[in-house]
Amino acid sequence: MSLNSIPEKLVLLRQKMRSENVDVFIAMSADPHMSEYLAEFWKVRLWLTGFTGSVGTILVTADFAGLWVDGRYWVQAEQQLVNTGFELQKQTTNPDSTHLAWLTKNLKANAFISVNGQTISAQQFADLEKIAQLGNFNISTQIDLISEIWADRPALPNQMIWQMPEGLNALTRAEKIQAIRLKITESNASAHFISALDDIAWLLNCRGKDVEYNPVFLAHLWIEAEHVFLFIDTTKVSEQLKDNLIADGVQILPYIESHAFLSAQQNQTVLIDPAKVSILHVQQIAKNNRLIEQINPSTLFKSRKHPSEIAHIRNAMQKDGVALCHFFHWLENALASKQNISELTIDEKITAFRAEQPGFIGLSFSTIAGFNENGALPHYRATEEHYSQISGNGFLLIDSGGQYVDGTTDITRVVPVGQLTAQQRRDYTLVLKCHIALAQTTYPEGLQSPLLDAISRQSLWKYGLDYRHGTGHGVGFALNVHEGPQVLSYYAPVTEHTRLREGMIISNEPGLYHAGQYGIRIENLVVNQLKPLDDDSYGEFLEFETLTVCPIHLDPIDLALLDDSEKKWLNEYHQMVFEKLSPLLKGDVLAWLTHHTRAI
Amino acid sequence: MSLNSIPEKLVLLRQKMRSENVDVFIAMSADPHMSEYLAEFWKVRLWLTGFTGSVGTILVTADFAGLWVDGRYWVQAEQQLVNTGFELQKQTTNPDSTHLAWLTKNLKANAFISVNGQTISAQQFADLEKIAQLGNFNISTQIDLISEIWADRPALPNQMIWQMPEGLNALTRAEKIQAIRLKITESNASAHFISALDDIAWLLNCRGKDVEYNPVFLAHLWIEAEHVFLFIDTTKVSEQLKDNLIADGVQILPYIESHAFLSAQQNQTVLIDPAKVSILHVQQIAKNNRLIEQINPSTLFKSRKHPSEIAHIRNAMQKDGVALCHFFHWLENALASKQNISELTIDEKITAFRAEQPGFIGLSFSTIAGFNENGALPHYRATEEHYSQISGNGFLLIDSGGQYVDGTTDITRVVPVGQLTAQQRRDYTLVLKCHIALAQTTYPEGLQSPLLDAISRQSLWKYGLDYRHGTGHGVGFALNVHEGPQVLSYYAPVTEHTRLREGMIISNEPGLYHAGQYGIRIENLVVNQLKPLDDDSYGEFLEFETLTVCPIHLDPIDLALLDDSEKKWLNEYHQMVFEKLSPLLKGDVLAWLTHHTRAI
Repeated sequence: MSLNSIPEKLVLLRQKMRSENVDVFIAMSADPHMSEYLAEFWKVRLWLTGFTGSVGTILVTADFAGLWVDGRYWVQAEQQLVNTGFELQKQTTNPDSTHLAWLTKNLKANAFISVNGQTISAQQFADLEKIAQLGNFNISTQIDLISEIWADRPALPNQMIWQMPEGLNALTRAEKIQAIRLKITESNASAHFISALDDIAWLLNCRGKDVEYNPVFLAHLWIEAEHVFLFIDTTKVSEQLKDNLIADGVQILPYIESHAFLSAQQNQTVLIDPAKVSILHVQQIAKNNRLIEQINPSTLFKSRKHPSEIAHIRNAMQKDGVALCHFFHWLENALASKQNISELTIDEKITAFRAEQPGFIGLSFSTIAGFNENGALPHYRATEEHYSQISGNGFLLIDSGGQYVDGTTDITRVVPVGQLTAQQRRDYTLVLKCHIALAQTTYPEGLQSPLLDAISRQSLWKYGLDYRHGTGHGVGFALNVHEGPQVLSYYAPVTEHTRLREGMIISNEPGLYHAGQYGIRIENLVVNQLKPLDDDSYGEFLEFETLTVCPIHLDPIDLALLDDSEKKWLNEYHQMVFEKLSPLLKGDVLAWLTHHTRAI
Repeated sequence: MSLNSIPEKLVLLRQKMRSENVDVFIAMSADPHMSEYLAEFWKVRLWLTGFTGSVGTILVTADFAGLWVDGRYWVQAEQQLVNTGFELQKQTTNPDSTHLAWLTKNLKANAFISVNGQTISAQQFADLEKIAQLGNFNISTQIDLISEIWADRPALPNQMIWQMPEGLNALTRAEKIQAIRLKITESNASAHFISALDDIAWLLNCRGKDVEYNPVFLAHLWIEAEHVFLFIDTTKVSEQLKDNLIADGVQILPYIESHAFLSAQQNQTVLIDPAKVSILHVQQIAKNNRLIEQINPSTLFKSRKHPSEIAHIRNAMQKDGVALCHFFHWLENALASKQNISELTIDEKITAFRAEQPGFIGLSFSTIAGFNENGALPHYRATEEHYSQISGNGFLLIDSGGQYVDGTTDITRVVPVGQLTAQQRRDYTLVLKCHIALAQTTYPEGLQSPLLDAISRQSLWKYGLDYRHGTGHGVGFALNVHEGPQVLSYYAPVTEHTRLREGMIISNEPGLYHAGQYGIRIENLVVNQLKPLDDDSYGEFLEFETLTVCPIHLDPIDLALLDDSEKKWLNEYHQMVFEKLSPLLKGDVLAWLTHHTRAI
């Protein structure tokens, strides 16, 4: 519980702003690592506004307080901001709708803007600076207004980190460091500074518990020709792991030392990813060194999983499939016997079944279980204050995933409850057709992922339907469930880094959302594999291998809408699911699997 | 015939370079309007090197002469450059393969580069300037070395221009000028300078004959709030047209006066399209005025055809279809009776049948008729020196188009000759499937056109096959057969200007080319139409109406590879073709049409 109400916090903030002569306070949803999921310590926006969505930008002046959020969260933010003193600012793809445009419109010359340089990336800061130059505003990155007023701020997390078991990673730590050093040299740099937590975890073959759902640990890393420095709370590293790290040439320094270390560097040419390093760190480096800006080489390495890693992931998928069969079997019986179950029960049960599997670490994100109208909110999360009972007729959408020591899963299935309408059957079948279209496709090696999205969506587009989220995101290997650089979305910029390469894992998750009625999404994880070809005169081609092993509910399908090749894909998928899971199941659950993987 | 051999021309050029202290001479394939097709006067590259391809960049120093061409032309350029003194430079998508990279690698500081500022766009010049700044080179845009050595240079064309007949254009000249003026104001500009010939023809509702295949006339245009100035060889404009233009506020000045006029402007804010104006003109404007760089508003207006214009185009398509039925009927009989026909005969005959149609003006591009291995060269053109007889077995690819007073056509069909192999049937059917996939697709209004290309290609990709050209280009209304800004190609950059809008016409032309064996391409023109929807909560959607009216050869199809919806599309297309053309045909030709539009 917080000591102050939100209006009280605003009063405190404005007092601080006055005492520091700050006209505008800005805070992004960020930590010094530009993470998607934040440790409690960095949840400034949640603490200050009460808004629980995943992204939002705060802007406070003496007489205005606004929270900018995108379309996914307008309804939720509207409700959560009531009587807080914050006004919802609806952000769209129109540049006029951003907080930057607000600054241009509302600020006078010489206005003084404060943003904590630890929690804004160099790239975001460059955009802010452009606006400031045009409007003649001043910006400081050095003032931390929040720490002074957040009395009960949680401590930085300090969970122990661990080394991944032998044999799970295709490359050793030393080999990965060597590979990065080659890239540093190729880029004509002398050193490289990394803040991205999943890149650091990948590079060191270590994992941690500092952030919910993401098995990462707070750290920064500096690599140069002779040395590697890891900035980390040293109490998190066991003596044995310290020895291992030192043996691989990794020296350990306190987390907080990164600032002094970077400020002391001279005459280096430092490779950084401006989207993944805080402006404060970049300013420290830039004092006496040259910068080379490009994507972290580790991000590209990490995105391509080695065949031996894919074998581990297949194993994790099988365990996840076993847990899911137990869960869906339980759910079917509970619904049939009219048990009193809610969206919250779903979350508890699915987590409990996963927890029974060997190597289970935790969830890979918070379970989305949405019945009917709740399922129509793609990022819905049931809470103690707001949840639905599962009863009557409709669709129950369940999007969930697990972290296992040998892989990360992410799966969405839709369960029919009671009677379905013809439109519901049509919609379910159209989403399934979209899923199958992507699963079946072959495409040139190196195609930019956004260019594939039209293939996914064509069955829905034909009916004038669409979904307002990407069709796929990258997924880590026993790491973050959202991982770049590839992204399968026609909204996304088509960049060099979106090129699809062998070994990349992405989600295949088309959907359809009728506001106030129901939502549908069918999601498997797939991996890019080279297509064997007799004749490669037209270049190399990739195809998807589906990794997720769990039946797709057959009952809601309108069979008349599936063509022969789609039926064939579905039957072959279910045959594979049966072969992989049936040896691990028995009794009623095996019978459930047998029924739900029947040929159509 | 030219007075000098190519080596002699090179000697003359190098003499001139020495007398002007020029170290490097550069020439792009361009005119002062950045046209794709050039008037004879501007064919500097052809004159200097003998290379007949459509694009290439010349770079000459005291001891090196290179011609940079892309992969389409490597074989051809290799042959044509023998003993010329020019070396083929193979340009790829790799930036290291360009003439700019050559400059960086080979030039010393203070080298003096000469490029005729009339024939390089402001955008291309900016790239050159960047290289020059890095390397400390000097550039002059003011020296015209070629005019001094090209003794028998053709005159600038001086064909009369004409006004399009009443009723063909949806907007009058005055309405179009008014629409452009609104865009000038919206862009905070005070004036607008246009050099793009098709934009000027569109804006003035006039056409000309200055350039082969493109019904345009050499001119520049200046629009401001009170005045419009047309820079044109005044002898091309009849007294009556002059009166009409003046009545619409268009004042006529000599073509050559554009330079003095722009140099005399002061304190204007001038909207220009840097890709479509020469650097010489831009330098003249920039002396005493501010520039605003964006795409010509007329390019965007022109790309969206009005329903009344589409009605005219349908009429032109019908005429073209009648001519094509006569042609293909003749061809079938000629082949059956073993007449002695060559690729050149094809060109003559198809042109003769088109010329019989009312309102025919000329071809919209030079006919491509390629038998077997010649068809595998997407830009093949038979010449008196090199052509094939049509005999034996294989595929004859014919890509041709007509300019009519009421529309521009562009169509490719493949005719089977003798016996086909199973692989030929498969390949033909796969290309047809690609064509139908695009024709059948529905997509969100405003989707960037490159994002649709995966839908076109998936049937070929599935077999590890592809084609190395775009699937579609924009087409003008009784104007250039290649028109921007939309382009349907996964190689093309995904920009704002590639968004598909209602009324845009594009070609649907997937293909497949087995080098040394045969080529296949099936091309219709289609127009973007709004899809009628009961529920628009997912936005507006577009679909394609096929405009081209001509049978697609049925005999080479492997029916086992077509699904029901593809057969349905083909039968409905042929039904439409029959309904539109049968009333205009009789006797044997009608029988030919009836047979070739039969249901499958």
